Amino acid sequence: MLTFETSQLQGAKAIVEKLVDLPFQKVAHRISTLDAQPASPNGDILAMVTGELLIDEEQNAQRYSQVFHLIPDGNSYYVFNDIFRLNYS
Amino acid sequence: MLTFETSQLQGAKAIVEKLVDLPFQKVAHRISTLDAQPASPNGDILAMVTGELLIDEEQNAQRYSQVFHLIPDGNSYYVFNDIFRLNYS
Repeated sequence: MLTFETSQLQGAKAIVEKLVDLPFQKVAHRISTLDAQPASPNGDILAMVTGELLIDEEQNAQRYSQVFHLIPDGNSYYVFNDIFRLNYS
Repeated sequence: MLTFETSQLQGAKAIVEKLVDLPFQKVAHRISTLDAQPASPNGDILAMVTGELLIDEEQNAQRYSQVFHLIPDGNSYYVFNDIFRLNYS
């Protein structure tokens, strides 16, 4: 599941279509904080990132927050929940 | 579990002690966004809040983000994970 600003999407196909349709060519992430906690006895991980984005040639960074719920899958993890928000003042 | 800025705490006793020790008397929350997603087949909820804090008599709001992982418990929920961060520029 992906919450991207006010959009709510479920399933890999819908999420990829949303990400491909975003109206910019490139985005640079500057991560300020990254915190993680175990989220279940099964090895789930909850991670929150805060930082700044620079979109295309824009010089003014926008602050954002994003949370991921990661579920173990063999030697890796998959993203079960993803919530993204810009932090406006 | 509570992550509060750089502090990591586990268990109700440690968390209550941390919250009681915070060096201010009152704090007002202004919530800007609240997003939630189902986080497991058991009814877990993942919620992210972004907004602003006003501490004591301070007039300059500070932006923050907080994520909660809520687990169902009878007719209610308890907070299993709580990650709080101020969003500095």
